[in-house]
Amino acid sequence: MELAAITHRPESEDAFLYTPDHLRLRLHTKRDDIAKVTVLYADPYWSEPTADGAYRFAYQEQALTILGEGQVHTHWGAEVTVPYRRIQYLFSVTDHNGDTYLYGDRGLRPDTEEERQSLGNYFKLPYFHEIDRVKTPDWVKDTVWYQIFPERFANGDTSNDPVGTLPWNPSDHPSRDAYYGGDLQGVLDHMDDLVELGVNGIYFNPLFKAQSNHKYDTLDYFEIDPDFGDKALFAQVIEEAHKRGIKVMLDAVFNHLGNNSLQWQDVIKHGQDSRFADWFHIQEFPVTPYRNPINGEGDPQFDTFAFGEGMPKLNTANPEVKAFLLEIATYWIKQFDIDAWRLDVANEIDHRFWKEFADACLAIKPDFYILGEIWHSSQTWLNGDEFSGVMNYAYTQLIEDYYLKHALSTRDFTGLLTDQLMKYRDQTNQVMLNMLDSHDTPRLLTLAHDNKALMFQTIAFTFLQPGSPCIYYGTEMGMDGENDPDDRKPMDWSQKGAAAWQQTQKLVQFRTDHAHTLSRGEIQFETVDGLLKVTRTGEETIVGYFNPTAEMISLDLPAFDQSQNYVSHILQPNGYVMVVA
Amino acid sequence: MELAAITHRPESEDAFLYTPDHLRLRLHTKRDDIAKVTVLYADPYWSEPTADGAYRFAYQEQALTILGEGQVHTHWGAEVTVPYRRIQYLFSVTDHNGDTYLYGDRGLRPDTEEERQSLGNYFKLPYFHEIDRVKTPDWVKDTVWYQIFPERFANGDTSNDPVGTLPWNPSDHPSRDAYYGGDLQGVLDHMDDLVELGVNGIYFNPLFKAQSNHKYDTLDYFEIDPDFGDKALFAQVIEEAHKRGIKVMLDAVFNHLGNNSLQWQDVIKHGQDSRFADWFHIQEFPVTPYRNPINGEGDPQFDTFAFGEGMPKLNTANPEVKAFLLEIATYWIKQFDIDAWRLDVANEIDHRFWKEFADACLAIKPDFYILGEIWHSSQTWLNGDEFSGVMNYAYTQLIEDYYLKHALSTRDFTGLLTDQLMKYRDQTNQVMLNMLDSHDTPRLLTLAHDNKALMFQTIAFTFLQPGSPCIYYGTEMGMDGENDPDDRKPMDWSQKGAAAWQQTQKLVQFRTDHAHTLSRGEIQFETVDGLLKVTRTGEETIVGYFNPTAEMISLDLPAFDQSQNYVSHILQPNGYVMVVA
Repeated sequence: MELAAITHRPESEDAFLYTPDHLRLRLHTKRDDIAKVTVLYADPYWSEPTADGAYRFAYQEQALTILGEGQVHTHWGAEVTVPYRRIQYLFSVTDHNGDTYLYGDRGLRPDTEEERQSLGNYFKLPYFHEIDRVKTPDWVKDTVWYQIFPERFANGDTSNDPVGTLPWNPSDHPSRDAYYGGDLQGVLDHMDDLVELGVNGIYFNPLFKAQSNHKYDTLDYFEIDPDFGDKALFAQVIEEAHKRGIKVMLDAVFNHLGNNSLQWQDVIKHGQDSRFADWFHIQEFPVTPYRNPINGEGDPQFDTFAFGEGMPKLNTANPEVKAFLLEIATYWIKQFDIDAWRLDVANEIDHRFWKEFADACLAIKPDFYILGEIWHSSQTWLNGDEFSGVMNYAYTQLIEDYYLKHALSTRDFTGLLTDQLMKYRDQTNQVMLNMLDSHDTPRLLTLAHDNKALMFQTIAFTFLQPGSPCIYYGTEMGMDGENDPDDRKPMDWSQKGAAAWQQTQKLVQFRTDHAHTLSRGEIQFETVDGLLKVTRTGEETIVGYFNPTAEMISLDLPAFDQSQNYVSHILQPNGYVMVVA
Repeated sequence: MELAAITHRPESEDAFLYTPDHLRLRLHTKRDDIAKVTVLYADPYWSEPTADGAYRFAYQEQALTILGEGQVHTHWGAEVTVPYRRIQYLFSVTDHNGDTYLYGDRGLRPDTEEERQSLGNYFKLPYFHEIDRVKTPDWVKDTVWYQIFPERFANGDTSNDPVGTLPWNPSDHPSRDAYYGGDLQGVLDHMDDLVELGVNGIYFNPLFKAQSNHKYDTLDYFEIDPDFGDKALFAQVIEEAHKRGIKVMLDAVFNHLGNNSLQWQDVIKHGQDSRFADWFHIQEFPVTPYRNPINGEGDPQFDTFAFGEGMPKLNTANPEVKAFLLEIATYWIKQFDIDAWRLDVANEIDHRFWKEFADACLAIKPDFYILGEIWHSSQTWLNGDEFSGVMNYAYTQLIEDYYLKHALSTRDFTGLLTDQLMKYRDQTNQVMLNMLDSHDTPRLLTLAHDNKALMFQTIAFTFLQPGSPCIYYGTEMGMDGENDPDDRKPMDWSQKGAAAWQQTQKLVQFRTDHAHTLSRGEIQFETVDGLLKVTRTGEETIVGYFNPTAEMISLDLPAFDQSQNYVSHILQPNGYVMVVA
């Protein structure tokens, strides 16, 4: 038995309340090494008299099942409950040779009844506190998101076009500083197009008054950028969205300000006497001219986003800054009834701030969705008191590595996906944001070498995963684009209703029709006849077959209803079929 | 290479700021499997142009060293820093056959320069936030604690003796309900004895007004129990202690109330109409007569400590209860200047409560010490926003398993100790409370089968460990006792100055003289000639040799000064020698 590969972490994604009274447990072992795992458990204070008058800890025993095969691990799981909201538990692990060990809080021990009675070795969830349970908003599990980069979605009002606005040309390769006049009136005008596509959540890139076309360099968090409209118009957007069952998520850029903001300009002017001097991370005055170390200019005088002079980093540990940002966070919920915040550069802001942020938002709207922009795995932020989920690049980039770059074997691919799912609690996986591209990456079609079949295979695979999928505006129009700024072309409305749009609509419909199982069900990966098979099991059983090869593969599916829409028996290269049992 | 044994968890005890700008990293591998580990790291935004005009991530590389050998793991570590408070890092792991893999956030990859440039696989500490850094009070690292069970330490004032107080007889085996008249005047009278013994921290069992002799069933948290004295006397105890450089820790029993408290009595009387009905975890009214499931009486009407009718559990998620308990917590700090709280049954209270508790205490006294009573490993409570440390039973019971019960091999013993140290950040290990016995366990001498040499060997070994040692009152008098209530005999003052007292004093002096190295230094375990050797390396090098056998072993120590106090060349069974290099 590979003892060194056995791991379990109490009070984490390995041991969490899924419901108020059901505890889910996970144990990780070396892949294919272990024949059987059981968990011994009971109330820590539950002892029973034995025949000889002594007392024994009266544990129950339950077998774990295999949740999935990781890159090099097998992941095991069980769900248990106890009557009085307290539990201690210990694992018994048996390998294929029949060797058995106890694995507990104080290490590995021989599996004897004496050791099973050694209570110090039990892991504990000392009490089932509902206040500590990780809860995630149910509506997100049933949402298909649609990301709008407002400057490029639609120009509904030419009267607010910035100086130098270019004609709306979807074939343009926009320069970094170009303006095309997209605005909120454009969103309002196309709200029913979104309904027709089937999406039910809009994720807006920043709308607040800022310096640039992307608006990530905020000047005033309490104003809608005049290029986009005003608050009255924004209130109308929200109202019309909500009327149609569409939720609205805004982008909160709290890591840094724009350097033209009044606060930073005050620092430039007054140096350390500025009343905003402590609002930033300043190492040295004066702060201009900025020394960029990347250019060999020495140590910078202040911290920024990356090494960008235009984006001085806010000191979110300063109570004044904290109060300022929390006022912003709650203002837009209270006054405009937004449903979610997407948090820009969320990983570079302190945890203490995010905990207060979550408390403030959830106090107003208990099912508010808090989404962090984090590209790496994010356990620390997802313990129930900071974010609901994060942008799931760590998951979706594996999908791209496999389908688009052919950089992973199928075994490594499904193994690494499974390992990622094991990093979070189930209720967290259900609200991760699964986007394949965004304003920060090349467009999916370009990543797919302009192969639309491959693009849709990738989307279909992603739609079968736990987590809330997100479509970047224009994907449904078959738009391409290299990385920023080429991924921000004006929307190509001419393609509405064309083949790509229809296929997108069909997938959105599929995800929505089967949302309960696709978000909350179990997942299993297999390979069958050269196909990658994904099985989701919940209220229904849904199976997807994906042909990752360059060959046609014919598939024998006698057990399924061949008349239903998504079934086809010949899988082209990059083809897929989804079957609902 | 045993790939499945390699683990690292970002933003945890595996990756923590030790100082504001130095990050300590740990990686775990299978024991004896790996020849070399290096970490590649740099600012995530730090790329440099290459000859062909592309950019590469310009990482630095540093070797990890072996921190220690666990039961089945080798633990590796390194300390790194970067100039601009942001870091990403990736491990390169090489086994004894020369095989090398990269281990990162997205799994195991071949170690190629291309994969080293695959930035998605880097772990991150996205920004060095001082507010998130785990900080622990320095004074605790230099403290030797002394635990006083007030009813049994000394009777300084017979005028407050409870009815039925028995004569002070250290040979008694106290019954569960006995009273001996110990009080705060007794503590005051003996303060200079504590100074003479050398301890500099008093940990008091509960002092507040309560039902029983142990006072864990609180009636009024704002009153000193009249059996012990009053607030004026307590203020004097604190003042005299502080005058002598002695810190004072009180016991906060917040998990439950006594059932005679006015709050619970109100619930009994008014049922669900009681204004305290939501102060507890009540499943059903009326709450009396209590149904104890242990006695087969069915499901209890309310949650208690264990299944004890006398200790109804408080609902610490109720804002009223929270406010009530935080007022208590801060009252004793603000009005009496106490230095620490020991938190009874800390693991059964919710995390949200403890986070507010820590904020409240630390706002008043930034170097306040918060000690949880937790018998199992406690990562969740020790991330810097709840407790400073916990009662380190998970560590000290291993010491007892080895020395007193002979239940572990030396290899498993030192391996499991090392594994325990790896569960916490270094600054946390430095303030764990290392007690070998308490009011909740049999006395050490009894555990040591009345063998004083063995008892002192166990103490000496414990004093060599990271963490703040704690002596249970009477240990220095050579007192014995079975578990509760026999471990609570009246103090045997006749033994002051006797052999046990002298040996205790010598060990306390040793711990105090070398506190910096013994609390903060590195630790290494070895076996040498049948002896267990412990080396602490810091400002000094301190080596302890322990004879765990029944044989005499002679020890050759030419490198050390033979004249110094703690050196002896023949180690008796249960003997030890400590050498300062």
